[in-house]
Amino acid sequence: MVIKKAKHGVCAPKGFKAAGVHVGFRQNKRKKDLALIVSELPCTATAVYTRNRVKGACIKVCKDHLKDGTAQAVLCNSGIANTCAPNGVEVASGACELVAKELGLKKKDIIVCSTGVIGEELTIEPFQKGLPKLAKKLSVEGASDAMEAIMTTDNVPKELAISFMIGDKKCKIGAIAKGSGMVNPNMATTLAFLTTDVDISKDMLKQILDNDVIDSFNQISIDGDTSTNDMMSIMANGMAGNKPITKEGKAYNDFSKALAHITHELARMIAKDGEGATKLIECKVKNAPSKGAARKISMSVISSDLVKSALAYADPNWGRILCAAGYADAKFNAENVDVSLISKAGNVVVCKESKTYPFDKDVAIKILEEDEVMVAINLHDGKEEATAFGCDLTTAYVKFNGKYKT
Amino acid sequence: MVIKKAKHGVCAPKGFKAAGVHVGFRQNKRKKDLALIVSELPCTATAVYTRNRVKGACIKVCKDHLKDGTAQAVLCNSGIANTCAPNGVEVASGACELVAKELGLKKKDIIVCSTGVIGEELTIEPFQKGLPKLAKKLSVEGASDAMEAIMTTDNVPKELAISFMIGDKKCKIGAIAKGSGMVNPNMATTLAFLTTDVDISKDMLKQILDNDVIDSFNQISIDGDTSTNDMMSIMANGMAGNKPITKEGKAYNDFSKALAHITHELARMIAKDGEGATKLIECKVKNAPSKGAARKISMSVISSDLVKSALAYADPNWGRILCAAGYADAKFNAENVDVSLISKAGNVVVCKESKTYPFDKDVAIKILEEDEVMVAINLHDGKEEATAFGCDLTTAYVKFNGKYKT
Repeated sequence: MVIKKAKHGVCAPKGFKAAGVHVGFRQNKRKKDLALIVSELPCTATAVYTRNRVKGACIKVCKDHLKDGTAQAVLCNSGIANTCAPNGVEVASGACELVAKELGLKKKDIIVCSTGVIGEELTIEPFQKGLPKLAKKLSVEGASDAMEAIMTTDNVPKELAISFMIGDKKCKIGAIAKGSGMVNPNMATTLAFLTTDVDISKDMLKQILDNDVIDSFNQISIDGDTSTNDMMSIMANGMAGNKPITKEGKAYNDFSKALAHITHELARMIAKDGEGATKLIECKVKNAPSKGAARKISMSVISSDLVKSALAYADPNWGRILCAAGYADAKFNAENVDVSLISKAGNVVVCKESKTYPFDKDVAIKILEEDEVMVAINLHDGKEEATAFGCDLTTAYVKFNGKYKT
Repeated sequence: MVIKKAKHGVCAPKGFKAAGVHVGFRQNKRKKDLALIVSELPCTATAVYTRNRVKGACIKVCKDHLKDGTAQAVLCNSGIANTCAPNGVEVASGACELVAKELGLKKKDIIVCSTGVIGEELTIEPFQKGLPKLAKKLSVEGASDAMEAIMTTDNVPKELAISFMIGDKKCKIGAIAKGSGMVNPNMATTLAFLTTDVDISKDMLKQILDNDVIDSFNQISIDGDTSTNDMMSIMANGMAGNKPITKEGKAYNDFSKALAHITHELARMIAKDGEGATKLIECKVKNAPSKGAARKISMSVISSDLVKSALAYADPNWGRILCAAGYADAKFNAENVDVSLISKAGNVVVCKESKTYPFDKDVAIKILEEDEVMVAINLHDGKEEATAFGCDLTTAYVKFNGKYKT
C-alpha cells in the first residue's frame, strides 16, 4: 500500500474545517487556547480515554456524547484541565451547548476536551465570548491554528496528514496531537484528534482505533505519569466516497495500516518532544515469547530513569538497559539477550548473550549523541516484537516541572 | 512493647563480629570494598531476593546456600555487581570457599553478595589477597567498617540496632543497609543484612521476614528501577536465650514488631538518601478499600517524577498527587479524596473531596521546604492503610546518573 504525505493536517480529509484563537483561558494573549474542528457532514466517531481513576470532567461528558458512535465537531481548550475543579461537568456540557447553537449542530455530536493545570476552575465566560469569533475563522487553513491552540508545554507542533487509496478512491487521514509532560498513556493518549473522509461503520472504526492504540500511543512514555485528561478521538465523515467499510477485509486492513502509520509517527513526535528531552529513544524488542512481553519490556526500558539519564549524556551504560528489561512484568529467558545501539551515526552491539561484549566506546557515544536513538533488544526467545517510544531525562525536565505551577 | 536503641549496628546482638577493608574492587584505596559479618554460632537464616529476571550471580549462589535455612556469615563486596559478567557463579562460589577455609565454616553457610556496576568482571584475586586481613579485623566494633564497605553511591551510612524483651530475655536486632540508586525493591531490597540473637525456628523466621518486606522495603522507591542484585538477609543465632519461637503468638508478634521497627527505619533512611535527593517523601494512604490498594496508591505517588520534581522545589502542586493516585493499579472511589501536606513546619489541607481547597500557599511552601515531608491521603473508602517511602527528584540525580559510569 502506498501512503503519501498530505497538506492541511486535521483538515486534509474532505469536508473538515478548523480554527484556533485566544479566548482567555491563558493570561498570555498571544497563545491560542481554544480549538474547534468541524465536519461538514455528521461522522461515525469513537475515542479512547485515560484509565486514570481521577478523570477530567470533559472525559465524562465525551463518553456520554460518543455513546451513539456519532460526532461532528471537536472543541478543546488548553490552560486549564477542568479536573478536580468545581462545576466541571456543567461547564464542559455548557460549552458543547454553545457550540451546538453557534453551528446548528446537535449538542451530543460535540467532542469536548481540556488540557492544562489540574484543580483550577474552568468558567463558561471565555467560551461565550470566544465561540462566535472561533466559528467565523473556521477554514481548511485553520488546521494549524487549532493545533497551536491545544499545545501546552510542547515545543514542537504535532500535525500530520496522509493520503492512500481504498479501492479506486483517494482517502485521507489528518491528525493533531499534544504532549509533552504527564505522558504515559494507558488505553488512550495525551490528546490526539484524528479526522478522515473514509466511509466506515461505527463498529469497524471503534475496533480499528482500539487495536491501534495498543501499539502506538499506549507504547509512549515520557515520565510514567498517566494524565487525567488523556484522550484520542477519530471522526470519519465518509466523504471520500469509498465503498463503506463494514467488515474485516482488504479495505479494513488498508485503513488500519494507514491509521497505524499516522499514530506511530505521532507517537514518535510526542516522545521526541517530551519535557526537557533532547532526543527520541525508541526501544525495539525482537524475538520475544509474546507480543505482551515485547510491549512490556520495551516500555520498561524507555521508562527507566537510569537508562534515560545515561542516554541524556550519551553514556552506553547497557547494564541499566538489561536491568530495566529484567524487571518488566514479563516472562522471558534472561540468559540470552543481545543489545545494540543504533542511530544515523551507526550501529554497535554492546551486550551479547546477556554478557558484556567488547565494543568501541567512542563509536557508541557518537551513536548516542544523535537526536534519534534506537535501543534494539533481541531476546532469542520467540517470534514476537514491539516498539516503545520515549525520550531522555535531563536536568531541564526536573527544573521545568519543579517550577511549572509556582 | 518497649523498643530501645542499641550500639554497634549489625554486631549489637550477642555473638556477632564484623569487619570491612579495601581489597581492590575499587580504585580508590580509601574506600572499603569488602565486608564480612560472622556469628559465633550457626544461625537460622533466610533472605528475600530481587524479582528482576536479570540476576546477579551472587543471588543464584545465595539461594542455593540458604536452601537449608542456616548460615553463619555474610560476605559482600561493593564496586562490581558480578551481574552479566563472565564466570560470575564460579567467582561468587569460590569466594565462599575462601571464607569457609579462612574461618573454619561450611561453604554452604556463607551468604554472598555484590553491589556495583553491572557487566564488569569480578575476579577472585582480591578475595584471596584480602580475606586473611579481613578475618583478622573481625570485632564487635567492626560493624561500622562493614557498613562502610557495602556503601556505593550512599552519602549517609545506614546502620541501626535495637533491643527489646522476649519473655524475660533481652534480645537485639542489628542491621546495615545500602541505597541509593536503582532502588525500587520488589520482594527484596537494595542489600540489607540483619542479625539477631533471638532464638527462632527457620519457618517462623522466614514467615516473619517475608511478611515484613511487603510493608517496609517493598514500599521504597527512589527511581523505579528494581536492581538485579537486591537482597535482604537475616541471621538469628539464638544466643539471647529466649524460649525458642516456633509458632505464632506473643513472642512471634513482639519479634515481628521489633523487626518492622528496624526495617521501616531503614526504609526511611534509604529513601531519604536517594541519589540526588534533598528530602524524604513519605506517602501515607488511609481509609483505603484494601491493604493492596493503599500500598499501590502510596507507591504510585512517591514514584511519580512529576510529584517528585514539584516537591524538590517545594511546589504544592496537589493535582499531580491526585493524578498519580488515580493511575495506580488499584480500585478506589476517586470522588472523595482528601490530601494534606505535613512536616515539622506544619500541616495543611490542599485538596478536599477531590476538589481544590483554599489553602495558604506560603504555609504549604514552608512545610515542603523541610527535609522530611509527608503526603497524607484519606480516601474515605475503607479502613486499610499503608505508607511508601521515596524522595524528591532533582537535577543532581540526572547529572549524577548521566555520568556515573563514563
